Amino acid sequence: MGSRFSNYFLMKNEDVIDYAKERLDFFAPGSELECDEIGDGNLNYVFKVRDKKSGKSVIIKQAGETARISDEFKLSTNRNRIESEVLVLQNKLAPGLVPAVYQYDDVMSCCVMEDLSNYKILRAVLSEDHRIFPYFAEHITSFMANTLLLTSDVVMNHKDKKDAAVNFINPELCEITEDLVYTEPFNDCFGRNDVFTSNQEWVAAEIYGDDQLRLEAAKLKFQFMTNAQALLHGDLHTGSVFVTEKETKVIDPEFAFYGPMGYDVGNVIANLMFAWANGNAVIKDEKKRSEYIAWLEQTIIDVVDLFRSKFSAVWDDSVQDVMAKEKGFKEYYLQNIITDTAAVTGLELIRRIVGLAGVKDITSIVSEHDRMTAERVLLTAAKTFIKNRYSFVKGQDFLDTLLQVQQDFDWKTRRDNDEQTAHIDSLGT
Amino acid sequence: MGSRFSNYFLMKNEDVIDYAKERLDFFAPGSELECDEIGDGNLNYVFKVRDKKSGKSVIIKQAGETARISDEFKLSTNRNRIESEVLVLQNKLAPGLVPAVYQYDDVMSCCVMEDLSNYKILRAVLSEDHRIFPYFAEHITSFMANTLLLTSDVVMNHKDKKDAAVNFINPELCEITEDLVYTEPFNDCFGRNDVFTSNQEWVAAEIYGDDQLRLEAAKLKFQFMTNAQALLHGDLHTGSVFVTEKETKVIDPEFAFYGPMGYDVGNVIANLMFAWANGNAVIKDEKKRSEYIAWLEQTIIDVVDLFRSKFSAVWDDSVQDVMAKEKGFKEYYLQNIITDTAAVTGLELIRRIVGLAGVKDITSIVSEHDRMTAERVLLTAAKTFIKNRYSFVKGQDFLDTLLQVQQDFDWKTRRDNDEQTAHIDSLGT
Repeated sequence: MGSRFSNYFLMKNEDVIDYAKERLDFFAPGSELECDEIGDGNLNYVFKVRDKKSGKSVIIKQAGETARISDEFKLSTNRNRIESEVLVLQNKLAPGLVPAVYQYDDVMSCCVMEDLSNYKILRAVLSEDHRIFPYFAEHITSFMANTLLLTSDVVMNHKDKKDAAVNFINPELCEITEDLVYTEPFNDCFGRNDVFTSNQEWVAAEIYGDDQLRLEAAKLKFQFMTNAQALLHGDLHTGSVFVTEKETKVIDPEFAFYGPMGYDVGNVIANLMFAWANGNAVIKDEKKRSEYIAWLEQTIIDVVDLFRSKFSAVWDDSVQDVMAKEKGFKEYYLQNIITDTAAVTGLELIRRIVGLAGVKDITSIVSEHDRMTAERVLLTAAKTFIKNRYSFVKGQDFLDTLLQVQQDFDWKTRRDNDEQTAHIDSLGT
Repeated sequence: MGSRFSNYFLMKNEDVIDYAKERLDFFAPGSELECDEIGDGNLNYVFKVRDKKSGKSVIIKQAGETARISDEFKLSTNRNRIESEVLVLQNKLAPGLVPAVYQYDDVMSCCVMEDLSNYKILRAVLSEDHRIFPYFAEHITSFMANTLLLTSDVVMNHKDKKDAAVNFINPELCEITEDLVYTEPFNDCFGRNDVFTSNQEWVAAEIYGDDQLRLEAAKLKFQFMTNAQALLHGDLHTGSVFVTEKETKVIDPEFAFYGPMGYDVGNVIANLMFAWANGNAVIKDEKKRSEYIAWLEQTIIDVVDLFRSKFSAVWDDSVQDVMAKEKGFKEYYLQNIITDTAAVTGLELIRRIVGLAGVKDITSIVSEHDRMTAERVLLTAAKTFIKNRYSFVKGQDFLDTLLQVQQDFDWKTRRDNDEQTAHIDSLGT
């Protein structure tokens, strides 16, 4: 009653301090609060509130009603409710692998959560520092096996699962994915694609010009829209993961909805491949490069294989449905997820190179030749991930596809160089 | 205000007359209304209200909060809202092929709709009179092509489709289908199956004992639960169809929800096969039998082939999604529906012979030998529909499967008879 915060408005730093004093139990009386806006996203405002005396801090994340770059791009703040509820649920299913949520305020559309300032965004520390995170595969596969399988029909009571699917319906953010992942990269139908100049002809021929690829993308698009298999994170790239040396926290599940499990797994794999391409192109020191690349390659293998083994163990512990227990069904179900994983690995590789939303791993490669080659290697592998998706089983299959394409490109580059040299030689004689 | 009908109660005939006078514009002032309860379903109460002077009449269908056979079986009256809204929508998409809805009352959970007393239930006139309905295939395929395709993602705006999927979520009635169609027929896990005595051993061996069949049923169960493709009728058997010589009205969409399109098409095909088995077993007059069977066989072919051609035409007129327009996608999408249709044909054949809810077409076959054989022919064909579902394309494929099994059984029966005769002969010598 009479509170400034009983009607939604977009908060500034001072408002957030007032909000923390009025609405949170978190800080002791007499705290000296300071507030900084630390977000760099496009849709939300992220504030860090800290008590100068005790050093205690929280994050307050408020959803805007329009995008920060343009008022014309309106979005329901419902995504913030979804994010808060999903984080609470994920923390139950995969304890410690997401930030703790302290409270959610539906009026102000803001979520108060654990401050992870001592963590770093995985994409940043990979592409800037090429650091190794030996526990990442272990953590991310626990997160995925638990949050995906435990929210699916094979485990949940079927009515509860349908209620959950309704609660987490997310049409606005799904539409972004339908457009940016499953449509525009294949035809630039809105003219928003952002293709590296040196690859424009190549992309026109090899992506826009590949009828079979576009048809497979169409199949995958409608599967993505209709297959309400499990509660996905929905945007599980390396920019949605906070890490320390030994810990991993998955953040930002605002794209969460019921969809095909392979969507999350494939996003993780593809984003590891961006880091791999960056490392190969950028690291000068051969020893450092080979160590870093070896870790990434093993991590790609481990993400698939640990996901498989953990999924299988959670299945054996949790599945109750009498038909789901039929001999051979688990293997069939898991193979479908791996097939979807391969397809989404390909889709994510393509959309981040061709589409509107690039990744720093690639855009930060300074050498034109290296960036051009890195993109072509990843795009060529992506086509195989999509077209041959039914043939993928183990982690090694994913890595082998990437390495085979890389080898073909190296060989082709070398042959082109040799031919050029021969040509120059012949001119010289 | 002060109305008897501002709080839900289960109406008797006199209440319904008062209701019609107070709440409907349908009858002229001074009408002399009479009311009969004409329903024979398990969940709802169906009243016919008629003006003795003008002869005008309406149907008032009220949902009970418990099943009529047992108070223990509780169901939300939400199914009645779904039914009313779905009928209104279907009448828009497939005009004239469902009864008109005059009004829906959410408090009393009752729907006022067109009286179809001059129509007959298709299953009844098939199994009792063996009448021919030359327009049925034409009508039912228009109904399915329009209601299914026009409620799917490939046509609807994606956000509107997601809203519709939420609006028509139907967990209670879906659970009935999940249990009775996709679970119990394969394992009798609740001990509720109702197997004809002469086939109990055969069913134990050929259905419960078929590992591959049970695994395929498990795959289909989870596809049914997760694939939100289109707004299904959800229970499209010959008992849900009213007919006259020239007209067809689809009724009772209370199981409606977003699921795989093939579920509706397969239900129609399977129930035509029940009529076919009944005709073969029961009609004595050879000319009448061959005419009736010839019509049913052509109708089975036509339902698949007309559905294919109408679906394709509606697609070309209606589909807007740029990816759905990719070359080859329509053919891929339609083939998936036919694959699902084959599987559901098999599932429906099995669950109506083995499971809790039998059909009169089969249970009314008096001769033990004929019923036993009819059931085995249909169950054997059903296994092929499920296991070989990917091989079905045209209507003739569906009929050929049935005829081939029938021929094998005739041959086998004849051979068994011959062997028996030979055995008797050998005993005699």
